[in-house]
Amino acid sequence: MRTLIRGGTVVNSGGGFAADVLVDGETIAAVAAPGLFTEADRVIDAAGKYVLPGGIDAHTHMEMPFGGTSSSDTFGTGTTAAAWGGTTTIIDFAVQAKGTSLLATMDKWHEKAGGHCAVDYSFHMIVSDVNDTTLKEMESCVAAGVNSFKMFMAYPGVFYATDGEILRAMQKARETGSMIMMHAENGIAIDQLVAQALADGRTDPVHHGLTRPPELEGEATHRAIKLAAVTGAPLYIVHLSSRHALEAVTAARDTGQNVFAETCPQYLFLSIEDMAREGFEGAKFVCSPPLRPADHQLDLWRGLRTNDLSVVSTDHCPFCFKDQKVLGLGDFSKIPNGMPGVEHRMDLLHQGVVRGEISLSRWVEISSTTPARMFGLYPRKGVIAPGSDADIVVYDPAATQVLSAATHHMNVDYSAYEGMELVGKVDAVLSRGALVIADGAFHGHEGHGKFLERDLCQYLR
Amino acid sequence: MRTLIRGGTVVNSGGGFAADVLVDGETIAAVAAPGLFTEADRVIDAAGKYVLPGGIDAHTHMEMPFGGTSSSDTFGTGTTAAAWGGTTTIIDFAVQAKGTSLLATMDKWHEKAGGHCAVDYSFHMIVSDVNDTTLKEMESCVAAGVNSFKMFMAYPGVFYATDGEILRAMQKARETGSMIMMHAENGIAIDQLVAQALADGRTDPVHHGLTRPPELEGEATHRAIKLAAVTGAPLYIVHLSSRHALEAVTAARDTGQNVFAETCPQYLFLSIEDMAREGFEGAKFVCSPPLRPADHQLDLWRGLRTNDLSVVSTDHCPFCFKDQKVLGLGDFSKIPNGMPGVEHRMDLLHQGVVRGEISLSRWVEISSTTPARMFGLYPRKGVIAPGSDADIVVYDPAATQVLSAATHHMNVDYSAYEGMELVGKVDAVLSRGALVIADGAFHGHEGHGKFLERDLCQYLR
Amino acid sequence: MRTLIRGGTVVNSGGGFAADVLVDGETIAAVAAPGLFTEADRVIDAAGKYVLPGGIDAHTHMEMPFGGTSSSDTFGTGTTAAAWGGTTTIIDFAVQAKGTSLLATMDKWHEKAGGHCAVDYSFHMIVSDVNDTTLKEMESCVAAGVNSFKMFMAYPGVFYATDGEILRAMQKARETGSMIMMHAENGIAIDQLVAQALADGRTDPVHHGLTRPPELEGEATHRAIKLAAVTGAPLYIVHLSSRHALEAVTAARDTGQNVFAETCPQYLFLSIEDMAREGFEGAKFVCSPPLRPADHQLDLWRGLRTNDLSVVSTDHCPFCFKDQKVLGLGDFSKIPNGMPGVEHRMDLLHQGVVRGEISLSRWVEISSTTPARMFGLYPRKGVIAPGSDADIVVYDPAATQVLSAATHHMNVDYSAYEGMELVGKVDAVLSRGALVIADGAFHGHEGHGKFLERDLCQYLR
Amino acid sequence: MRTLIRGGTVVNSGGGFAADVLVDGETIAAVAAPGLFTEADRVIDAAGKYVLPGGIDAHTHMEMPFGGTSSSDTFGTGTTAAAWGGTTTIIDFAVQAKGTSLLATMDKWHEKAGGHCAVDYSFHMIVSDVNDTTLKEMESCVAAGVNSFKMFMAYPGVFYATDGEILRAMQKARETGSMIMMHAENGIAIDQLVAQALADGRTDPVHHGLTRPPELEGEATHRAIKLAAVTGAPLYIVHLSSRHALEAVTAARDTGQNVFAETCPQYLFLSIEDMAREGFEGAKFVCSPPLRPADHQLDLWRGLRTNDLSVVSTDHCPFCFKDQKVLGLGDFSKIPNGMPGVEHRMDLLHQGVVRGEISLSRWVEISSTTPARMFGLYPRKGVIAPGSDADIVVYDPAATQVLSAATHHMNVDYSAYEGMELVGKVDAVLSRGALVIADGAFHGHEGHGKFLERDLCQYLR
Repeated sequence: MRTLIRGGTVVNSGGGFAADVLVDGETIAAVAAPGLFTEADRVIDAAGKYVLPGGIDAHTHMEMPFGGTSSSDTFGTGTTAAAWGGTTTIIDFAVQAKGTSLLATMDKWHEKAGGHCAVDYSFHMIVSDVNDTTLKEMESCVAAGVNSFKMFMAYPGVFYATDGEILRAMQKARETGSMIMMHAENGIAIDQLVAQALADGRTDPVHHGLTRPPELEGEATHRAIKLAAVTGAPLYIVHLSSRHALEAVTAARDTGQNVFAETCPQYLFLSIEDMAREGFEGAKFVCSPPLRPADHQLDLWRGLRTNDLSVVSTDHCPFCFKDQKVLGLGDFSKIPNGMPGVEHRMDLLHQGVVRGEISLSRWVEISSTTPARMFGLYPRKGVIAPGSDADIVVYDPAATQVLSAATHHMNVDYSAYEGMELVGKVDAVLSRGALVIADGAFHGHEGHGKFLERDLCQYLR
Repeated sequence: MRTLIRGGTVVNSGGGFAADVLVDGETIAAVAAPGLFTEADRVIDAAGKYVLPGGIDAHTHMEMPFGGTSSSDTFGTGTTAAAWGGTTTIIDFAVQAKGTSLLATMDKWHEKAGGHCAVDYSFHMIVSDVNDTTLKEMESCVAAGVNSFKMFMAYPGVFYATDGEILRAMQKARETGSMIMMHAENGIAIDQLVAQALADGRTDPVHHGLTRPPELEGEATHRAIKLAAVTGAPLYIVHLSSRHALEAVTAARDTGQNVFAETCPQYLFLSIEDMAREGFEGAKFVCSPPLRPADHQLDLWRGLRTNDLSVVSTDHCPFCFKDQKVLGLGDFSKIPNGMPGVEHRMDLLHQGVVRGEISLSRWVEISSTTPARMFGLYPRKGVIAPGSDADIVVYDPAATQVLSAATHHMNVDYSAYEGMELVGKVDAVLSRGALVIADGAFHGHEGHGKFLERDLCQYLR
Repeated sequence: MRTLIRGGTVVNSGGGFAADVLVDGETIAAVAAPGLFTEADRVIDAAGKYVLPGGIDAHTHMEMPFGGTSSSDTFGTGTTAAAWGGTTTIIDFAVQAKGTSLLATMDKWHEKAGGHCAVDYSFHMIVSDVNDTTLKEMESCVAAGVNSFKMFMAYPGVFYATDGEILRAMQKARETGSMIMMHAENGIAIDQLVAQALADGRTDPVHHGLTRPPELEGEATHRAIKLAAVTGAPLYIVHLSSRHALEAVTAARDTGQNVFAETCPQYLFLSIEDMAREGFEGAKFVCSPPLRPADHQLDLWRGLRTNDLSVVSTDHCPFCFKDQKVLGLGDFSKIPNGMPGVEHRMDLLHQGVVRGEISLSRWVEISSTTPARMFGLYPRKGVIAPGSDADIVVYDPAATQVLSAATHHMNVDYSAYEGMELVGKVDAVLSRGALVIADGAFHGHEGHGKFLERDLCQYLR
Repeated sequence: MRTLIRGGTVVNSGGGFAADVLVDGETIAAVAAPGLFTEADRVIDAAGKYVLPGGIDAHTHMEMPFGGTSSSDTFGTGTTAAAWGGTTTIIDFAVQAKGTSLLATMDKWHEKAGGHCAVDYSFHMIVSDVNDTTLKEMESCVAAGVNSFKMFMAYPGVFYATDGEILRAMQKARETGSMIMMHAENGIAIDQLVAQALADGRTDPVHHGLTRPPELEGEATHRAIKLAAVTGAPLYIVHLSSRHALEAVTAARDTGQNVFAETCPQYLFLSIEDMAREGFEGAKFVCSPPLRPADHQLDLWRGLRTNDLSVVSTDHCPFCFKDQKVLGLGDFSKIPNGMPGVEHRMDLLHQGVVRGEISLSRWVEISSTTPARMFGLYPRKGVIAPGSDADIVVYDPAATQVLSAATHHMNVDYSAYEGMELVGKVDAVLSRGALVIADGAFHGHEGHGKFLERDLCQYLR
């Protein structure tokens, strides 16, 4: 079956140009001068619209176990919501429990996600138990296309890895060419501040933020970078939230070290003021690292322009306000950490284009092309080019929409952006050639999405 | 007429992929999955080869008047040599003489180049006389597609502009959205060192380098950046040669300022040791800024990776050794400044790919895509995409060649890289659809090249 | 004649301690445990008071010709005012006029000051005409104890030196071990901004400040530092006023380069808001560099703590409001540049002690000891030690005073600090053993002060 | 009893001047112009010599328990050796064992040292067990004049404190105005490198150095600084050995943060080459942080000039080669960590004066005045001034000596500087007025030294 997307402006990371796109089966057959092709089984009119490579959200947590509960989106609901928002690939995290094997963990996650995803998906591996066995297993993971390993400098007793464990995993990453992803907050120091706050009766959601000062994110980021320098491992800082951390990344990148970072829409659009909303409302915004004072946002946008921030992912990890966030009433440390977001990443970042913070091509780059190259999916994903998977978003830059829990498709009972008015909206979405979003409806199905074995990062030197 | 380039690997700045390219007339009609198109008037077999957007050399000086003589390549010979080397666009400099008008200068250069170029060309404007009239004329230049203005912090009495003049021109650049290009060396201080050297009898070519220390390039670069910050003008540092200047650029770019820089192959591959060769041999390597100690090369390669250096141009400005360079025998200050290079830029940079200094896609980016976006030629130039001009290079990465004045096509009697063995070679070149290089022969003609009116820089915020 | 200063706390730059000071003739005979000496010709009770080495103001302009007028304090009135404020040494500037000789200039200034000063004095030399003769004369100046040479990167046509002239003078400074003092503002760029402001009708005093942005002080400071690095000359940045310049100095000092800087009380206590006072009132605060936005003050105080600012001088250059400042009514560029201050430096800096910005010993260091060591007067000046000149201030830290033109002793019709309440006050002052201030009266006389031949800077490496 | 030190050059931190010093009993009675005093019970001729405030070694470990053995100098032998070398005060470390109380530890150390020291002494407290009780005890320690608390980021299981424990101790330091001293090496990461080296059979002494890369000292230094910034605690980095750590300190000090650092003579004069000497010889040089590549020495000297390094202490911690160092034959990790040095600090630093690395007054400052002010002993110690303790060194700058275990007075069987020729030598030493070294003999006695209760640091803001 052939689909012709006609009359639009193709926007790749290098820039935009007027072109038609011919899709044949699951892949792109050609990108052609307007009008070169005239016949197809299906024609999509993209006049006045952008034709983008499908978004890649490199950081999601579907049905993730956390403190006795689970994030509220399944792989099914979460990837469906992703599709609605123009994201056609997610990379989720398989979570090693202490005392278990990486390979068993990978199997488990294949079982959880397999046959349930509406769009393509892949995995990073969370390593929470560094020992000779799991270090050896990293090799098998890489061979199986899971070649990025997340570690935590926070959450002692759960995910926390010591600097020694990080060093060992980094040595293995260096050896295998794989990537270490880091949650960089000094959790050991933070936990003292948390305990002191609780002991003092400072228990409201905002104290989640106040006990995790940006200095301690900056410190941990710097430390991870230095451990990476000693071992030679590639390093990817996840969910960077503050100027302090950005400065450490910038300094490292200036030296040419293989250090990369992502930020998330919540750090670009929300602030600690949201965590301080009346009553328990702030719990909706509890995630780690926490939202920062609003002046950090300007630095993060600048980082996106300078490429010191290379990727925007969501860290999508929804918990319902009613049943789940309330676990932390009277004790902010018990609020499940995480926010919903997979559906609105492309739209929110488009506001950056509208406001002049980033260019059109940079929008595509940070939300699709760079994640693809960073995580070994390019050119299968991340570009409108012949041979690439036909993951294509037709985007209407002139449409408007209002975000709301009442209308979103994520399985969570609130929106962090309730009532926010946006310019731009997804018009149609193809996932490997299948039209999954069109005419304001979802035409895909859970199970359409395939697992993606990934190559190594394409930015390393 | 339709040309099909078949079986190659298309390499754009975002990465490479297997695709065929269909050319129709002067532009690209389609980029398609291999085999999608089967018929064409002409078929070029690119199996095992790269299919690249034609190179753009953003800094050349053809038949440029300098101290009573002229650079030895005409627009005809120079652009023919460019074509041989896979460069299908040059941006040359129209040179305002003191006391003359910018518009008259532009006319004069149109006359010099018009009807003579073998590939497409455009102009930057050298502003050597800042006054109310010429500032006003900058607006007309911009309207005529010449929107980048080069100024000099060196060469007092010839091109030198005072900081006040630079400030005024920058204000106009800010106002018109145009770009200031800067030759950043503190020529006022340097001229004292030159005079002292000559007075001391230190007259050999190497003293050209020793009297222009990298600290004074770093200083001038910093100063230009600060003047740009005060005025809000976009700034492009030409021919950056040293770590000192790179540090200034890096610091500015970290803040998000609209500051860009190019380096040249001679700074990446040659060093001050070459200027110190026996006898007068060093004169072949006299250019400004001068070649630096070899350890600067590593910093420049790193800068190309970090994008603190965004472009590689040649500063092609050839003077024959026999008749022209000899003018400086016994007085290095009289050696015509400049080196040949337009023919070998793509090949030399490909060595960076071979050595692992830069990636394949970065090679394309710094030599074609970024110059196109920097100087408002994208997507007409700089990318293999439908609608773009069919400026295409078929490049054989496995071929080898030896550089030599005996075989090169530039009109100059020496090669700065005599005897250097390279991996990779241009196989075929199309210029706006015309096959100009194929089967080891030039099939183009002087006059084929058209003048390009340029849009504004596409990197500004 | 022997004077015993009894019961006070001697404060040297290293710290304070309880001790009596015995003066014999013009010098200090002993510093002794309290009570060790019991007899003397004169006993001064310092109980509850500080006993400080006399202040050294390393930057004054008495009766300085400027644009057809002269600064309003003579060497007589100015040094008397200095004595009132606890300053027992000034270093003034001999001003070379273009086309004249340095030695003749020195003679002229000896004539102007000789026999007129109430306290000791020395000279720096302003070099406004760099040529072979004056460079040679620098050697004679050094031999005559005038070994610091001030140059200007501002005021083209008057004092301005080109970077080439600066380079040459710095080479001579390096050769002779003498110091280059720099007025670091990019006057060439500033003059364009000034001309534009005047042309636009922006003529009020505040525009003096707005046309001299701190970025252009930072730039010039950086440039002076780099020229000093190239030549190896010691460099002293005068009247540093902004964070931008401080950053350049800090970076240089971190590398160990021989770079030093002074700031002035006006930059620590006043701001551009003062220049924007109603009517023409702002003219009282016109000096160059101009007063900055108030947030720079915190950076300057920090610089004093970190020793990136080593000295506080006044740049005392008073012009009467009524007759002199008014020359710039309707054209800020015609307002004589300069402010009065020699009398209140010690008192104003003492407020820094009171507020906790600096320690007691640091107060002494920046106002007396460091200027003495910086300009080759130590240990004759700058310390309470046997053998040193008995330049001693008995300071009452508990007294209070209100600054006012009605009560000050400088020959100028306004106070920049009118109505400001201060804690601390000079109680008594000895100049080379003579009691010049005591019991609220001046007991000295013009002519008491002697010229000081200075040694080279004692901080160089 | 009165002692008159006649005819010398008194050198304080502010500079030198010709003066006689009169001592009466235990303190200095007067500093006087030469010849003012003529009579005394004892006259010491200091003609041609320096008269210095006695050295203060702020970092020694006498009879310190370490891995089943003890450092080989007792408080008696160690302080006698100190006196020989012109050091009249040591600050040693009381070492809390895990599970014991700080106050009991202090008592124990009073017992060990009391009545045994030849010169005055004080204590820092090593905190190895942070809990509510010991945090509370810190207050009592401060009240008892022990107000500096050393912590370790290395040696897990022994002294190692987690970042959370450090944070808590720093909060208490902030509250009490006391100082946290930090051994800054990332011991957790280092221990992995050590284990890997041993597992690989890399067991020679040099691997002690190679497994502790300077990057991991830099990292830990940066981390300690950031924890100090979050808590507001004053921080003193002990035994800083590398450029990497110095950069972190410099950056912090530029911001005005209360961060200080010391280095040690071994890092200024020895290098990792010494650890790589033939056979097991390298064990003599095993200390932590380890000796670095020789190029770090230049950076450390520069740091001493810029005051980013404020103090030079010895970290004197001697272990005999024959009986103690040999414990690590075949396993470098078992070599007792530490080197002898208390005797030669003043002499070694004087070589810096001789070579022009530091000035005469800076020598006094880093070895006596600054330690006194840093650790609350000024003006009792650290200056030649009336009222100060008569801890005085008469130093002959022209004498020469050769260092050797055969002639030194420390109780250890080797010298780290065996055969090194020095210029300058101690001539006579007074400790609180008692002549302890004179005519090449020790005239003091163990027990003369008194415990010094210390005030808070005098550099804080």
